[in-house]
Amino acid sequence: GAAPAVHAQAALRWRLASSFPRSLDTIYGAAEVFSRKVRALSGGRFEVSVHAAGELMPAFDVVDGVQNGAVEAAHTAPYYFFGKDETFAIGGAIPFGLNSRQMSAWTYEGNGLRLMREFYARYQMVSFPCGNTGAQMGGWMRREIRSARDLQGLKFRIGGFAGKVLERMGGVPQNIPGGEIYQALEKGTIDAAEWIGPYDDQKLGFNKVAPFYYYPGWWEGGLQLDLYVNQKAYDALGAEQKAIVEAASAYAHVETQAKYDVKNPQALKQLVGAGARLRPFPADLMTEAFKQSMALYDELSRKNPNWRKVYADYARFRSDQNLWFRFTEATFDRFMQSQRL
Amino acid sequence: GAAPAVHAQAALRWRLASSFPRSLDTIYGAAEVFSRKVRALSGGRFEVSVHAAGELMPAFDVVDGVQNGAVEAAHTAPYYFFGKDETFAIGGAIPFGLNSRQMSAWTYEGNGLRLMREFYARYQMVSFPCGNTGAQMGGWMRREIRSARDLQGLKFRIGGFAGKVLERMGGVPQNIPGGEIYQALEKGTIDAAEWIGPYDDQKLGFNKVAPFYYYPGWWEGGLQLDLYVNQKAYDALGAEQKAIVEAASAYAHVETQAKYDVKNPQALKQLVGAGARLRPFPADLMTEAFKQSMALYDELSRKNPNWRKVYADYARFRSDQNLWFRFTEATFDRFMQSQRL
Repeated sequence: GAAPAVHAQAALRWRLASSFPRSLDTIYGAAEVFSRKVRALSGGRFEVSVHAAGELMPAFDVVDGVQNGAVEAAHTAPYYFFGKDETFAIGGAIPFGLNSRQMSAWTYEGNGLRLMREFYARYQMVSFPCGNTGAQMGGWMRREIRSARDLQGLKFRIGGFAGKVLERMGGVPQNIPGGEIYQALEKGTIDAAEWIGPYDDQKLGFNKVAPFYYYPGWWEGGLQLDLYVNQKAYDALGAEQKAIVEAASAYAHVETQAKYDVKNPQALKQLVGAGARLRPFPADLMTEAFKQSMALYDELSRKNPNWRKVYADYARFRSDQNLWFRFTEATFDRFMQSQRL
Repeated sequence: GAAPAVHAQAALRWRLASSFPRSLDTIYGAAEVFSRKVRALSGGRFEVSVHAAGELMPAFDVVDGVQNGAVEAAHTAPYYFFGKDETFAIGGAIPFGLNSRQMSAWTYEGNGLRLMREFYARYQMVSFPCGNTGAQMGGWMRREIRSARDLQGLKFRIGGFAGKVLERMGGVPQNIPGGEIYQALEKGTIDAAEWIGPYDDQKLGFNKVAPFYYYPGWWEGGLQLDLYVNQKAYDALGAEQKAIVEAASAYAHVETQAKYDVKNPQALKQLVGAGARLRPFPADLMTEAFKQSMALYDELSRKNPNWRKVYADYARFRSDQNLWFRFTEATFDRFMQSQRL
């Protein structure tokens, strides 16, 4: 945990269960940044100890842990919990969804935080945005993917909810926590695996067992991470402590995206230098995946009223964002990316 | 100012001078968000009153105000002060520089904050990132710009440092605070004006006097705003108060970009509906502006050791960022922007 010297004097102590392994300073580190900021902002009177996946509970049990009060807080990727309700996925990332900046905009200044909190109240949780990975890579494949057909029968470790789209395309999604993927890929239990992007993927060593590195991770154009807080623990806080939780989480939110952006370019260079073969997904696969995703969202809107309410707002927002970003943002970025810098 | 009911009880009171007019809830609003968070995080024991441009001092005098201690803090666009030293501009935006996310990355997790603070120490100031506008639009023109030649003699209100590039291309840059641009454009004192983007520009009414709306704002791919704090005022804070200033500024940083992203799409639709004519800058103008910008940066690196030190790091960072963003981020965004959503 992040227990410091002043721990003994803290008036308030929380435990936070992360869904991530301690080895990933980026995604696991977000919770540590949160904890450090809470300590600093409270003058050491409010302490949050951070526990890696498996330390207090398995990676995918942290929502249960917060809901039943076993821990006061969790740091996780919301889409892991789509089995409880598909609406969880919208709080993290859905295929062909918002990018990192758009997701922050929906959360902080659109209706995102309000709608997701209304949903999370069913689980006795309050949510705070706490990091984003940016657009992820599409993962490591043992063999090349030349068309959508090559997904047939592919045993692919893929993050949570995206498996539902992969399934519709004939793939066989595998939901495996970060810390256990390498072994499965090495053993051949799975054919392919995506995790996050160059920096984390390099740490987990996937390039050693699967040479082809695909992009873009169309199912995670910007995975937002959440801090979940048990409702009773939150209600017990004073106004100042509530403000501390919110601000510490916002700090970790911006700092985590920054960390990914700083670390990914170097890692990508090293991976390519070590033989990783970068490949864009074929156009027919992208088109089919988009079509299947939209069909899935239509189905869910008919079947799940929670999904329908949140997705309707999210989809409108996504449409407006892409309209706006295509002008000055995209034109600027495209020009810069085509220069010799 | 933002003085609340509890003002009388605050143990610590700061005054903050903004360079922006109160009418702009986005860019002026960032300082108000900062102030609200400081109050909440301190339980009302630390108050920051926010003063619009002209209230305590003119828009472009706020660095002097912080340096000489007339106010404890300012919220401004760093490039306004390039006349003191061109290095200021790097802290805000330079032509063909970093985009919003890349600028946050350089600041929070690259060498940006450390290098800029080292530079700002000459002005007895400590800096905190406090908002970003995103990639700005290229501004409002009374007549169409068909090639780089059309910049010859153009009296163009353009943000701070970018005027140095415009000058090299034959234009006549005008540095005018936000609150005074409309009158100059209406009177015909200037031929063209850029301010920020659809939402702010619509508020200031530029579309009423100049029909052509250009993109991208290649001189502001992501203008980062700064909170400047007087060094002595900062040193007098306790550790908890220092953490509060940092976290409140980080909160305003992420919230301000979110506000722009939420508000710009609607404003763009309204402007186009009211007759604004969207135009991309011609390719020869972009190429020439890029060339002139790089030549300017080379000159400055020879003449100004402060610039040389900071720019060397910034340029390396920009190169790596554009390498990385061109893969998964750009491919994802381009696909999304080309869909019917």
